[in-house]
Amino acid sequence: MKKYTRNSRVLLITRILSENPGKIVSLGYFSEIFGAAKSTISEDIMIVRETLEGAGEGWVETLAGASGGVRYITGVPEDKVLEFRDEIIGYLKNPERVVPGNFLYITDIMQNPSIISRAGAVIAGAFRDVKADYVITVETKGIPLAYETARYLGINLIVVRRNTRITEGTNVSINYLSGTQGLLSTMSLSKRAIKPGSSLIFIDDFMRGGGTLKGIRDLLKEFDSDLTAAGVMVDTGKQMIKSDMPFLSFAHFLGISEDGTVNIEPSDSLYL
Amino acid sequence: MKKYTRNSRVLLITRILSENPGKIVSLGYFSEIFGAAKSTISEDIMIVRETLEGAGEGWVETLAGASGGVRYITGVPEDKVLEFRDEIIGYLKNPERVVPGNFLYITDIMQNPSIISRAGAVIAGAFRDVKADYVITVETKGIPLAYETARYLGINLIVVRRNTRITEGTNVSINYLSGTQGLLSTMSLSKRAIKPGSSLIFIDDFMRGGGTLKGIRDLLKEFDSDLTAAGVMVDTGKQMIKSDMPFLSFAHFLGISEDGTVNIEPSDSLYL
Repeated sequence: MKKYTRNSRVLLITRILSENPGKIVSLGYFSEIFGAAKSTISEDIMIVRETLEGAGEGWVETLAGASGGVRYITGVPEDKVLEFRDEIIGYLKNPERVVPGNFLYITDIMQNPSIISRAGAVIAGAFRDVKADYVITVETKGIPLAYETARYLGINLIVVRRNTRITEGTNVSINYLSGTQGLLSTMSLSKRAIKPGSSLIFIDDFMRGGGTLKGIRDLLKEFDSDLTAAGVMVDTGKQMIKSDMPFLSFAHFLGISEDGTVNIEPSDSLYL
Repeated sequence: MKKYTRNSRVLLITRILSENPGKIVSLGYFSEIFGAAKSTISEDIMIVRETLEGAGEGWVETLAGASGGVRYITGVPEDKVLEFRDEIIGYLKNPERVVPGNFLYITDIMQNPSIISRAGAVIAGAFRDVKADYVITVETKGIPLAYETARYLGINLIVVRRNTRITEGTNVSINYLSGTQGLLSTMSLSKRAIKPGSSLIFIDDFMRGGGTLKGIRDLLKEFDSDLTAAGVMVDTGKQMIKSDMPFLSFAHFLGISEDGTVNIEPSDSLYL
């Protein structure tokens, strides 16, 4: 059997925990792959824990008992969260983002993994104590961010469709008033997607009045389920849900001035 | 300044590289956060490299010169790839996945981060030498897998829409024959999404005849760009693109028997 030094073990444990956030990895698993006693692995995990937690890079929880193991909980240091928020604001202020109709083009931001993975880590860290069985979003632009939040929390993603799909089996559909275009829209979800009695975190790219969020809550009633938190990249600072549940956004979009200036303010709802 | 031991440095370097696959991280960055000489950091990186590469967990490239740094290239050990493929086949064979119309429900698989992150790592590892500026998919089900592939490759994602959106600015649209429902469909992409002359990897959940892939290639002509590889979770083993470009799939779906058996075969196009 291959011999592992402590250096090798702690870095491979870090690698495995980083790739499996929110999941319990058993001491027995590490013990087997390294051919080392559980007491040795426990010492290794202590080093991983002290180093990651000392750097503000989340938390390493050890779980005792028969299912004894270790779980990495995502977290982002406060200074990096603020730095990230400012970076996002810098991108959003770029006047080249204004498209006809005075909309802000943010698709490239929502599809850039080095931005979205950090945003997902910030949201997962902020909502680490929120009860959640799934992360939910409505297609399409918020899917990568919702996926990252789910991955970092170690739970599954649910994507609500705008049309029913024949490959989804029986669907539940509701009508709601869509904020972006002020139109009556439909949202649809497979009957088998959510276990009844579930708690969900809603993630999207942009929130105007909160119409989509309200639609999601109505849809979730059909699954005897409800939202426990919500997070978006950008909001207008005008939605009315803040007192209702934990809500996180990175920036407020306050419109475009006549001279073409994009009015963006930092959001204060970062849950630091 | 905080003092870091070698154990702490190698595990934090592993953490940073794991969170930034495909990206160049400079030696100077590590040198600054650890308050250590570049020669010390070089020794640390040697340990990280030997351990990760020894475990089959990808490659750590060091880059000399003014932009000297280190880049982590995603890779998955061969035995884990085969184990993962067999796990996927086990999920797909479940007869409860059959929905009216003899379609296979795979939405839960495509939205499960612990499955999709591994699938993305396998695809990124297989296509590590393919020239690619972006990963491209068509909404909706393939987005998480396409996102993960892009994240592991360190490049951006492009999502083609089925309708034009007013928040995207000027759009380029084409019509194509959609395989799943045999219908004439539209795909649409913002004029500003892709730099002309780009190379792209196409990722989707399912490929039947390859109609969507052909549509994407037609759409990309409008951007003077083309595909260099393609990957899907499941195919029918019948598409005609294999000789045309590198193509990866995990399983062949061969239909549903009268007794309800889901006929799934392992795919041999895994690029091991």
